[in-house]
Amino acid sequence: MRNIKLTIAYDGSSFFGFQIQPNVPTVQGILESALTEITKENIEVIGAGRTDTGVHAINQVINFRTNSKIPLEKIPTALNSLLPNSIIVKDAEEVSLDFHARFSARSRSYIYLVYNAPYPSPFLRNYAWYIREKPDVGKILDVIDVFKGEKDFTSFSKSDGEGTIRKIYDIALFERDPFIVFYIKANGFLRGMVRLIVRVLIDAGYGLIDRNGIESIINAKRRGMIKGIAPPYGLYLYKIEY
Amino acid sequence: MRNIKLTIAYDGSSFFGFQIQPNVPTVQGILESALTEITKENIEVIGAGRTDTGVHAINQVINFRTNSKIPLEKIPTALNSLLPNSIIVKDAEEVSLDFHARFSARSRSYIYLVYNAPYPSPFLRNYAWYIREKPDVGKILDVIDVFKGEKDFTSFSKSDGEGTIRKIYDIALFERDPFIVFYIKANGFLRGMVRLIVRVLIDAGYGLIDRNGIESIINAKRRGMIKGIAPPYGLYLYKIEY
Repeated sequence: MRNIKLTIAYDGSSFFGFQIQPNVPTVQGILESALTEITKENIEVIGAGRTDTGVHAINQVINFRTNSKIPLEKIPTALNSLLPNSIIVKDAEEVSLDFHARFSARSRSYIYLVYNAPYPSPFLRNYAWYIREKPDVGKILDVIDVFKGEKDFTSFSKSDGEGTIRKIYDIALFERDPFIVFYIKANGFLRGMVRLIVRVLIDAGYGLIDRNGIESIINAKRRGMIKGIAPPYGLYLYKIEY
Repeated sequence: MRNIKLTIAYDGSSFFGFQIQPNVPTVQGILESALTEITKENIEVIGAGRTDTGVHAINQVINFRTNSKIPLEKIPTALNSLLPNSIIVKDAEEVSLDFHARFSARSRSYIYLVYNAPYPSPFLRNYAWYIREKPDVGKILDVIDVFKGEKDFTSFSKSDGEGTIRKIYDIALFERDPFIVFYIKANGFLRGMVRLIVRVLIDAGYGLIDRNGIESIINAKRRGMIKGIAPPYGLYLYKIEY
């Protein structure tokens, strides 16, 4: 038995999210079909992060177990020839049998792309959140560290999960005109967490909420306090560390 | 009667080209429907360039005549609310009745995007030509000016047209790692001309053809001498000058 770790990128606008579902294209479903075809075994794929519909991945990590003897270096090419070009296998690695893409992960990082210009771009409609009004980046930088550290992020989740404590190691903003780029790294994320944080930070840039306001949302530990959410198509799963 | 000039951008991967055709989405068809809805008149759209299926536009120019009294500054917003987000109206201008988007154009320029990296990107599959092997950019720069000036470009056309003489004012290459960007400006282009030129220039970068080889293709004035063609999805109609 071998345990294979793959690093993959995908365009989330082509899929109904990562996790397999009946009758709709999902990243997991398409990967499992391709792996089953290559190995002639029933392959089950484990993903590090279950990205939602529309969310992209630059370096998603998955693993699967197989008895197939296919040489490691042939796996990316064999898969890429079967996969649609909205999914790319960038790397394959043989790992110990106890490696689990999701549970072994020590940290995950995401990038969120905001596009600020006088009018939206047809080329970015699936790849960045378009905002017409320019937020005050200084105001965002004034409050951004409020999210750092280990906290109960219930208020920043979309649905019930198994535990709501997460530790944010790093959160940063880069201006790359006409883009505002958010980077956020944590031991893990609740469902919708990055998008709710980005929404609140853009609101801070518009002067709609300040540090006290954000702190009271965090401390309330209650879902549904945040009006709106940044759309999924600006979000990119960037890196998983083990 | 008013004559309205619009500047529009569109993502060509959503359309079967600019020119109207029955039963498939085209830029012209969708624009005409939206304009007919706004003006309550049967609107006919004239485009500066008939981009092929998959070809994008950053600043396509179109014009249409109307008796509608809709204020000029309301046209972009009214149209953008009706159009799919793969087409954006950037600007509207009232022009003299004899202005014709196609025949009044003095020059057209295109950009062609080549993506060179160890593996293709799922995000660029509709927006750049992916090439794995790095071409020698110096070799391309050595020959690129061979296309400049007024010539018979029959060998660089995909189909019969009305005359084959065109004048290339400028042709340039910019390296923006991992992209190679071609810029080309002419009084007009034959069908497939930019993509055939880019194909030959990349071949020059691979050492497959030199200046003499390109000159003999030009001088032959015969279609079908070029093996392959750069794909449509790397091509962007960039600017029309009047």
